[in-house]
Amino acid sequence: METYDVIIIGGAAAGLTASLYTARQGLKTLVITKDIGGQALLTNDIQNYPGIMQIGGFELMTKFQEQAASYGAEFKYDEVVSIENKPGEEVVSTTSGEYSCTALILAFGKTPRDLGVPGEQKFKGRGVSYCAVCDGPIFKNRVVSVAGVGDHALQAAVYLAGVASKVNLILPGNDVRGDDSLVSAVKADDKIVTSAGRKVKSINGDKTVKSILLQKGDGSEAEEVETDALFVEMGYIARTEFVKGIVNLNKENEIIIDKFGATSAEGIFAAGDVTDVPYKQAVISAGQGSIAALSAYNYIQKLRGKPVSKTDWKSVKTVKQ
Amino acid sequence: METYDVIIIGGAAAGLTASLYTARQGLKTLVITKDIGGQALLTNDIQNYPGIMQIGGFELMTKFQEQAASYGAEFKYDEVVSIENKPGEEVVSTTSGEYSCTALILAFGKTPRDLGVPGEQKFKGRGVSYCAVCDGPIFKNRVVSVAGVGDHALQAAVYLAGVASKVNLILPGNDVRGDDSLVSAVKADDKIVTSAGRKVKSINGDKTVKSILLQKGDGSEAEEVETDALFVEMGYIARTEFVKGIVNLNKENEIIIDKFGATSAEGIFAAGDVTDVPYKQAVISAGQGSIAALSAYNYIQKLRGKPVSKTDWKSVKTVKQ
Repeated sequence: METYDVIIIGGAAAGLTASLYTARQGLKTLVITKDIGGQALLTNDIQNYPGIMQIGGFELMTKFQEQAASYGAEFKYDEVVSIENKPGEEVVSTTSGEYSCTALILAFGKTPRDLGVPGEQKFKGRGVSYCAVCDGPIFKNRVVSVAGVGDHALQAAVYLAGVASKVNLILPGNDVRGDDSLVSAVKADDKIVTSAGRKVKSINGDKTVKSILLQKGDGSEAEEVETDALFVEMGYIARTEFVKGIVNLNKENEIIIDKFGATSAEGIFAAGDVTDVPYKQAVISAGQGSIAALSAYNYIQKLRGKPVSKTDWKSVKTVKQ
Repeated sequence: METYDVIIIGGAAAGLTASLYTARQGLKTLVITKDIGGQALLTNDIQNYPGIMQIGGFELMTKFQEQAASYGAEFKYDEVVSIENKPGEEVVSTTSGEYSCTALILAFGKTPRDLGVPGEQKFKGRGVSYCAVCDGPIFKNRVVSVAGVGDHALQAAVYLAGVASKVNLILPGNDVRGDDSLVSAVKADDKIVTSAGRKVKSINGDKTVKSILLQKGDGSEAEEVETDALFVEMGYIARTEFVKGIVNLNKENEIIIDKFGATSAEGIFAAGDVTDVPYKQAVISAGQGSIAALSAYNYIQKLRGKPVSKTDWKSVKTVKQ
């Protein structure tokens, strides 16, 4: 079993920042993640990451990863299936192996919530998508639909209207609600046809999506709407089943952390969207990743009888250019 | 009295990020600060701000400010003397005027701690400095001294050894303690002469610093050491006297905040080093600034009967290039 000082589960803003910090402290650091970037990939136009006027999510996350790797952080693309919390040793099992570490940082973010209707699983990746920015361009000049709630749904509709020939926006509520500027943008765009007070009942097609069945909230009326794609924007959930019973979760299954990024389990820290942080922003996740990493470092230092630190202001040589 | 939606006191990583976020939400935003940059200015080599491999503190903070200003944040260079907390209206008094706002964000950071010895006030700016990176270059090839504690003192000594002809490092403890790599760097540098177990008793000179008087901890021995400058690195304190009784402070006089960046006073939020956040890093302060700003926005939205938001992922046009 390979042993590390720190293992970080998750390779987006929080996890990558944590790996940058622990690697800079000279800790042997492994990031285990399914992919790089997480929800930052959902946008190609980040304007509010301080210090960078405008950048795509993919580009920003690539910079995070390169910076962490330059100080020696290692990466393994794999899925974690379970963790075990022992005093002074955490064991992480993936689909292909086992790793141990002194301190563990959970930073695996959130996952899109399914609609939960017939046809959804069958057509995933064949017209059913959970990322407008990622998959929108595939449906250039074609008819797409968005089913969802809140600003994410409005934002997806506005983005897709710039790509598709028509956007059906299906909202469960009786009017378009959300951020003022997004509501205005939805209402002003002729390509967006809003079906308020409707829900998707099923997704139909052959090899790919051909239509969706809509129904009024009271079930009184059904309507078949032709579409080449359905973008689901039902929000995000924390898939924390595999850490339940090890760290304390709140009612939304988010990992509860304190000011130090510490969970209820000794040696296990957490950061980013998977925690009970109230807002979802790259810079917030990055800040939390830094907190969790410094706490993990101090935890290891204490175990080893060495001094702790409140900062990382030093110059460190990179291991590669 | 000029009225704003949001006033932010402090113009460093936390305050500038907060102003970026509130300005992007279309809130009329004023930053009142003595200067731009705060403690990020203490380093010309930031390697751990995620997304930017290497940047000077001044350069990074300038980018933060330009980004906030591009969305309409206004700046006033002034010192706040008092604040008043009324329901729905906060009043901020500076040395030159009065301003009111709906939500107030406190982000004025920390201030270097004085040594508290004779001569210190007299020679401030005439050889006594609290920023090695800022003022070190003035003393190129001359003799300087550092009096301080912890990593900051070691870091200042290592930095100054690259500039000055000799660095007297005065430490109260009996050996050089701190981050391993800094301790090694101090010990390996021939230009650094360490006086451990000593304290500065007075700073002497005529127009500028000429010497310092050192004494052993037990007061048994005194020694006059010639030096052209004294860099004080005694740590930082929160100067929160003017908000005492309005927001709750901890024992270190830091402002206590919750997960939402909220203080104990309605309508008053806080972020960055002035709060009880455990670590001091630009990215942590930036993350907290974003949290405080989104909470201030939601507070104002609720007062105005409008929907709240958990994100800011939208595209906003800049007001200037």
